Amino acid sequence: MRQHYPPINPRFPHFLHGGDYNPDQWPPETVADDMRLMKLAHCNAMTLGIFAWAALEPAEGRFEFGWLDRVMDQLAANGGYAVLATPTAAHPRWLTDKYPSVQRTNRERVRSPHAHRVNFCLTSPVYREKAALITRQLAERYRNHPALLAWHVHNEYGGECYCELCLAAFRDWLKRKYGTLEKLNEAWWTAFWSQTYFDWNEIHPFEGVIHGLHLDWKRFATDQCIACYRNEADILHAVTPGVPVTTNTYWFFVGYDARRWAPHLDVIAWDNYPPYHARPEDWKKAVEMSLMGDFYRGLKGGQPFMLMETSPSSQNWMPVMKLQRPGIHRLKTLQVVAHGADTVQYFQWRAGRGAAEKFHGCVVSHSGHENTRVFRDVADLGTLLEKLDGVIGTTVRPEVAVVYDDENRWAIETVAGPRQQKRDYVPTLVAHYEPFWKRGIPVDVVHADTDFAKAGYKLVIAPMLYMLRPGVAERITAFVEQGGTFVTTYWSGIADENDHTFLGGFPGPLRPLLGMWAEELDVLHDDESVKVLPEPGNALGLAGEYEAEIFCDLIHAESATVLARYGSEFYAGRPALTVNACGKGRAFYVASRNRAAFQDDFYGALSRELGLKPVLDTVLPEGVTVQKRGDGKREFLFFLNFRNDDVTLPLGTARLTNLADGAAVAGSLHLPAHDAVVCERV
Amino acid sequence: MRQHYPPINPRFPHFLHGGDYNPDQWPPETVADDMRLMKLAHCNAMTLGIFAWAALEPAEGRFEFGWLDRVMDQLAANGGYAVLATPTAAHPRWLTDKYPSVQRTNRERVRSPHAHRVNFCLTSPVYREKAALITRQLAERYRNHPALLAWHVHNEYGGECYCELCLAAFRDWLKRKYGTLEKLNEAWWTAFWSQTYFDWNEIHPFEGVIHGLHLDWKRFATDQCIACYRNEADILHAVTPGVPVTTNTYWFFVGYDARRWAPHLDVIAWDNYPPYHARPEDWKKAVEMSLMGDFYRGLKGGQPFMLMETSPSSQNWMPVMKLQRPGIHRLKTLQVVAHGADTVQYFQWRAGRGAAEKFHGCVVSHSGHENTRVFRDVADLGTLLEKLDGVIGTTVRPEVAVVYDDENRWAIETVAGPRQQKRDYVPTLVAHYEPFWKRGIPVDVVHADTDFAKAGYKLVIAPMLYMLRPGVAERITAFVEQGGTFVTTYWSGIADENDHTFLGGFPGPLRPLLGMWAEELDVLHDDESVKVLPEPGNALGLAGEYEAEIFCDLIHAESATVLARYGSEFYAGRPALTVNACGKGRAFYVASRNRAAFQDDFYGALSRELGLKPVLDTVLPEGVTVQKRGDGKREFLFFLNFRNDDVTLPLGTARLTNLADGAAVAGSLHLPAHDAVVCERV
Amino acid sequence: MRQHYPPINPRFPHFLHGGDYNPDQWPPETVADDMRLMKLAHCNAMTLGIFAWAALEPAEGRFEFGWLDRVMDQLAANGGYAVLATPTAAHPRWLTDKYPSVQRTNRERVRSPHAHRVNFCLTSPVYREKAALITRQLAERYRNHPALLAWHVHNEYGGECYCELCLAAFRDWLKRKYGTLEKLNEAWWTAFWSQTYFDWNEIHPFEGVIHGLHLDWKRFATDQCIACYRNEADILHAVTPGVPVTTNTYWFFVGYDARRWAPHLDVIAWDNYPPYHARPEDWKKAVEMSLMGDFYRGLKGGQPFMLMETSPSSQNWMPVMKLQRPGIHRLKTLQVVAHGADTVQYFQWRAGRGAAEKFHGCVVSHSGHENTRVFRDVADLGTLLEKLDGVIGTTVRPEVAVVYDDENRWAIETVAGPRQQKRDYVPTLVAHYEPFWKRGIPVDVVHADTDFAKAGYKLVIAPMLYMLRPGVAERITAFVEQGGTFVTTYWSGIADENDHTFLGGFPGPLRPLLGMWAEELDVLHDDESVKVLPEPGNALGLAGEYEAEIFCDLIHAESATVLARYGSEFYAGRPALTVNACGKGRAFYVASRNRAAFQDDFYGALSRELGLKPVLDTVLPEGVTVQKRGDGKREFLFFLNFRNDDVTLPLGTARLTNLADGAAVAGSLHLPAHDAVVCERV
Repeated sequence: MRQHYPPINPRFPHFLHGGDYNPDQWPPETVADDMRLMKLAHCNAMTLGIFAWAALEPAEGRFEFGWLDRVMDQLAANGGYAVLATPTAAHPRWLTDKYPSVQRTNRERVRSPHAHRVNFCLTSPVYREKAALITRQLAERYRNHPALLAWHVHNEYGGECYCELCLAAFRDWLKRKYGTLEKLNEAWWTAFWSQTYFDWNEIHPFEGVIHGLHLDWKRFATDQCIACYRNEADILHAVTPGVPVTTNTYWFFVGYDARRWAPHLDVIAWDNYPPYHARPEDWKKAVEMSLMGDFYRGLKGGQPFMLMETSPSSQNWMPVMKLQRPGIHRLKTLQVVAHGADTVQYFQWRAGRGAAEKFHGCVVSHSGHENTRVFRDVADLGTLLEKLDGVIGTTVRPEVAVVYDDENRWAIETVAGPRQQKRDYVPTLVAHYEPFWKRGIPVDVVHADTDFAKAGYKLVIAPMLYMLRPGVAERITAFVEQGGTFVTTYWSGIADENDHTFLGGFPGPLRPLLGMWAEELDVLHDDESVKVLPEPGNALGLAGEYEAEIFCDLIHAESATVLARYGSEFYAGRPALTVNACGKGRAFYVASRNRAAFQDDFYGALSRELGLKPVLDTVLPEGVTVQKRGDGKREFLFFLNFRNDDVTLPLGTARLTNLADGAAVAGSLHLPAHDAVVCERV
Repeated sequence: MRQHYPPINPRFPHFLHGGDYNPDQWPPETVADDMRLMKLAHCNAMTLGIFAWAALEPAEGRFEFGWLDRVMDQLAANGGYAVLATPTAAHPRWLTDKYPSVQRTNRERVRSPHAHRVNFCLTSPVYREKAALITRQLAERYRNHPALLAWHVHNEYGGECYCELCLAAFRDWLKRKYGTLEKLNEAWWTAFWSQTYFDWNEIHPFEGVIHGLHLDWKRFATDQCIACYRNEADILHAVTPGVPVTTNTYWFFVGYDARRWAPHLDVIAWDNYPPYHARPEDWKKAVEMSLMGDFYRGLKGGQPFMLMETSPSSQNWMPVMKLQRPGIHRLKTLQVVAHGADTVQYFQWRAGRGAAEKFHGCVVSHSGHENTRVFRDVADLGTLLEKLDGVIGTTVRPEVAVVYDDENRWAIETVAGPRQQKRDYVPTLVAHYEPFWKRGIPVDVVHADTDFAKAGYKLVIAPMLYMLRPGVAERITAFVEQGGTFVTTYWSGIADENDHTFLGGFPGPLRPLLGMWAEELDVLHDDESVKVLPEPGNALGLAGEYEAEIFCDLIHAESATVLARYGSEFYAGRPALTVNACGKGRAFYVASRNRAAFQDDFYGALSRELGLKPVLDTVLPEGVTVQKRGDGKREFLFFLNFRNDDVTLPLGTARLTNLADGAAVAGSLHLPAHDAVVCERV
Repeated sequence: MRQHYPPINPRFPHFLHGGDYNPDQWPPETVADDMRLMKLAHCNAMTLGIFAWAALEPAEGRFEFGWLDRVMDQLAANGGYAVLATPTAAHPRWLTDKYPSVQRTNRERVRSPHAHRVNFCLTSPVYREKAALITRQLAERYRNHPALLAWHVHNEYGGECYCELCLAAFRDWLKRKYGTLEKLNEAWWTAFWSQTYFDWNEIHPFEGVIHGLHLDWKRFATDQCIACYRNEADILHAVTPGVPVTTNTYWFFVGYDARRWAPHLDVIAWDNYPPYHARPEDWKKAVEMSLMGDFYRGLKGGQPFMLMETSPSSQNWMPVMKLQRPGIHRLKTLQVVAHGADTVQYFQWRAGRGAAEKFHGCVVSHSGHENTRVFRDVADLGTLLEKLDGVIGTTVRPEVAVVYDDENRWAIETVAGPRQQKRDYVPTLVAHYEPFWKRGIPVDVVHADTDFAKAGYKLVIAPMLYMLRPGVAERITAFVEQGGTFVTTYWSGIADENDHTFLGGFPGPLRPLLGMWAEELDVLHDDESVKVLPEPGNALGLAGEYEAEIFCDLIHAESATVLARYGSEFYAGRPALTVNACGKGRAFYVASRNRAAFQDDFYGALSRELGLKPVLDTVLPEGVTVQKRGDGKREFLFFLNFRNDDVTLPLGTARLTNLADGAAVAGSLHLPAHDAVVCERV
């Protein structure tokens, strides 16, 4: 496995630190002052031109690059760099006026007015032609500019379009996939309620009760959006080979299948806006954000990514736009670095005077000067990042993987039943991830098609693996046979890639591996719980009395051994946790959704048994984690304290150097509330 | 009064037991196995062909009956029967493609896309023609088939259509009703806000502030939907005389006027999905379900009905899709039998692999075999039903009637004021019905046009009888004059059939009968209550201190005697309960919405005074009821325990036979938690 | 400053007492009986013809005034008067049929069906032509009628229209305002997200993210609606000079800019429906209603206004339509009189039999007679009003002004951030107004463009003065320099008239006056609070420990003196209250939203320092206020008790006469629960 990656752009083997910048909204004297402020803030990279289409091409085919030339030159002259954006996320009004079909159409089949951003048709040939043209103009103009460091295509792709062009493209996509309507009708189980299709043109993506259609529409939308990205990225690759190209996204790629996107991006770029407000529950949010970081790092097999957007202060679109507390800025950005970021970039550099984001946190506030708390936070972080060159390109190779899978999530979210408001796929992943975060054991987050055996994991956890695409069960089985440990839960092995339930007994193709059969799935009201009692003398040494909630699968052990049983309800005495030996490995079935104490004990026991290595051999207090990056030679430890009070961590025999000040650290580490410390292992 | 009815189809004088079955979704070997499983489950009737239009007529005028022929033959060969459905509740896509006008149009005047089911225009001539054609094909093909037991038209009619065809039909309906616009304007009180109509074409059913229009639109929709039913039913009657025809419905006929539907159905068919989950409040839901059962039995004057759909397990469309607890299956189905069902049919027989209902409870789960808890529940019930032939055709003739009236409910729900979120017409009926359920006193549920005197009731209760159509007050008065006892409440006698308020003092035409006048209606916030204190020495012997909530009518006794007065608020001392003598009978006015203790005491006193006969002369614990059916010679008692614990009922002198095992029962009956027992009186 | 105004119509120098009346809905005998009842109710003025367009012009150009002639004559014959309405708030269906463009179009660009009321296009030339025609017919017919006392144009103008006519008018309005698209793009900050306009026709008022556009659209809608009013009012002025013309409105003019409306109205008319239900919190609602009364009186600089609508009992559109408790009717109507009303008019006189408002409280109920509690309440009030002739035309000249500003409110409500659900502009004004209400100190409510120095106030309070239009800061500064005291708060001085933030430090143009700079604005969750601790020895003598919630501005004192500091959170020790001397006056900055105790102490101290004169020199219990009206010679005191219990107020040396009975009042005044007493100072 690869342990070290080159910098995002080898021309600049340092942390990028900077932000979105809109010089077209400001007079020259302000731009000049920005150059001065950037140096004071220890910033080195500005993301330019996002949403600037109207300024760059104020009339069809008439381009005005003067203002951008000047800023690019000023940046270069001041030792700064540009992450140069294609402006296609906000097309100009003249484009809509002349070619109304570029505008998106909603589910109610109404073309939306020109407004907001990311409002373009995913199929429109005109949009693609005009987007390609402005992209090529930019690429050719700045191909040799010294400030050009990376390309940033579009911005936060998202959504779907339901216009006639998109519908026709969808039908073509379906014809290529299925060939005949007979096969499509079969795949979509349309005999139900006489939904049979007799003509391709009868297909509309609005019909919620056909789950196969829903899945195919999401798959098509992913493909279509990737094609829009490629429409621009291919030009950039051709004109400026060697300059990395990406687009920025958030929350598991916002409705598209991340698994399919990753190969098309030179580097992954994440927009991260964690809601940390120095409240006691912050650390639980931090667990989720760490999982997300691992997800983004995992998308390209461990390659470091860009933190393309984060706020230097508050987020104005939040219902409660709290100020960032002291320390939080360093904590939240270094958390992302710990999980693989090689950049720290902000939205945005300078606060605009008008419109929807005028009160969003910015490095330079409306006051216009550097004498603010936020500016000092940014400058302090910049100073630290300048000392972290060694971190660039390093990664982490965990022994544990948690499976996150978009298609699986889509299927779970669409199903009618069994507990409509509490399916909670992502929170469930977080619950199974949290025990490792608490112990400082690194984790990968990967999709279901991963070849787990080849990847070398010791432990693979796949909660709520409702959908099993062809090959998934086989790869999991092979992983276990070769010695791996596999954990899955209730509501797994239910349906195939078309969302057809498996026949003959759940968990379908995983039944032999798990050695059990799930007869019925009970669900609980929010105010109910069921006891889970370990079997006396069970192999994992579990001894607590646990509580299940929401989901309780009623299963029969076949070849599996029962480790715990329900302790209440009419199914008291029936298995709640089983393990089945298979080849050299074992497969666990967790039949219920259990409260945190179960996960803590269960994964604690597994961690001991499997000898999973934590970053540091110490017991961490609640709310504190240690993550690491390295390349096999050097190892960097990130201590992150999400608590509201100071802690002192015993370090055992570890000898470290604090990279902020070069001080030797041994014996113990004092970590103030909300502080983050980066050390290198000596 | 009739005491015994023939079986639904005299060819089969037994309980129908079976369910919806979709053999067109399965391969032949599965269908063959279903025949084996049906016998194991003690099932004898399958509902076939619902939603199978696309399978039966895959192109306009091309019919494919082969698959249905085979299943009908297999059923017959295995001693089973078919409740054969017309497939018109889900028309095929080709029909929409060729004749878009068959598709329903919503309130926003947008024609809905082809999707879901029951999505047809209530007026479309093409829809009616095509529905008639497939109906006739089915009728003629299977007219002599030995498996054919009954016809099931469509499925769960519902909703309204706002297309131009429907609007034109509505205007014609109005012309027939009113003759002139002058009369219509008068009936609709259109002078308010200059709403006057000057042309018939100005009439649209969207205008919420014209209450007469709203009522007429609902009346029209009822008529139009009955016409759709008759479009098919008349053919079936003509081609297969003697085979009963029905359609299935739920919750008081879902927005149509049940009173008008009943004469058109040979037998009533109810889809019942009670939410019993072994929670303490289950018995309160059971009271409501019992009232609903009495409503369905009452629709055709006491004739037994079909339980056309119920789940053998959970309902996947519920927010919390809990499994059915042990015992609940028998309890919930026998409850419906107790109130008049001569069938127990499920949705559905075999779980489908895809689409909206794939996780709905089924007799045969995705596992495909009989070794499940649910299958055993069904088989056990089937075994019991085979012993209940004597129950078939029996009914009950209560001495008490509660008035439920659709038009009254529509009017109450539309009014602006006085307590928008707490009108609660049905819960109020349930509150007045509950005291009888607790005592095991049978009740009829009837509409307001009933001739109460002729029906022979001792007690008629009409809570919230807001609307008095012409003749209603007269019939109630005649009932009382001839010796009946009548009870009504606040918010009664307010408006006529056009929702015009009566002038001269509420309760309008009932004022002489009740001997009081209602000056103002106060309403309370949810957190408020008002005391109701019986008059010392009142005729009913009421002695408690009661609490009113939500509604407090401020009335003046005229000829009436005051039995209780308000004990707080600025109207302390004013009458809260009155009684007025009229002819040989009495009429009570309950001025406030009271908590349950009042109803318990009030109706307890009335029951004693009137000598109302309970099914069994015993005191029932909370959550347990006894209902009965009989024919004057034989009498069947249904003991239903909705509690979470066992009870032992003293039986007094009653001598019974438990029909499950033929054992003699006397002295007392032990009734486990969630159990239901059927006994015959010896 | 003017101290006395002429009566609304000098022909009738008494309180108008009456209500909306729809004789067109009733037979002649009912109308005749109404004349009898009016006298019994001590009513003297009926509002006639609202919504009667269909009755007055049943076909285009065909007018039927017969019924109105008769009622006008009957009124005159019985000594009554008419507030005659133009019926244009509900146009007839024939108008919509023939000229569909008169109908309003909604934001989704769908023309609404003919329904409800106030549903006309604000631009339609046909609507204006037809409205002018019926207005002229009315004016000319009744110009000399003895019953005609005032004109009531339309009814409760409101809403906006998005049809093509309105869009074109809006673009013209913008062309006149901006001249060029360059200036418009600059004013609207359209460079953000490439929102630049290239053509006037690209402008649609739907785009929420352009705040300048939003403000301009609201300004345009105000202008357009005023033009509709003028379309009718100008005719009335021309035909019947001397008869006052107005229109009725509610809640700060419902979305239009009240500041622009006032000059066009001869007299302000308020529809007031306070939710008093004898609940403990009633008095807090009463504070808000008093502020609203002061706002309406302030609109024309202190001139008395009309209470054009209030309910004589309950309001049927409320979720809980409670009856009006004893005493409340007098209390709520005299509260409005206390703040400047010279009329008490009801919606409505007689309850209609049908439609949306049939259960709204009315003077004459469906019973049709006078023997009701509500009728007696009205008659009693009428008797009292007949004794208050001296109050007519009097006003009040407060020393304190609170700034309410529509454009400021619009801007605050549109912003994204910082605390979306708790901006609470009006509740914040109420919180700063309440200390004066509790002390019986009169207050004016004025808009931000007021010339405060010229108006002679001692204290001006402008909470959340987010928007500073040109000149506002200058006028405030001049006011302070000349000796005034000014108070503002967090979230002030943020943006200009285009909602562009000020650069260089908030509060922008007010920074020199206030002597402080606001660096960041923190916001709190609902369950959080921050301590505010007065500086020891502060000039105001503040000594409590206060609590801030929701908003905490983090400010730097420059020339200002710190009077209080935060006592918790990471900004403990930073200034929370400052004062800055400027010329002869002082300017206070209240940095946080504080709970009531702060306002009580702060404004209590200011009141003492500034010697603000209360109406009566006494301490009022919570829930009781005293307001006054006078003309410099006579002074009328209104004692209003919103408590649920009686109080006795010490009157000090004041000597009064109770106008209800002429009794002398001295020493103390016993005020029963919910009572209101009007006294004249002897």
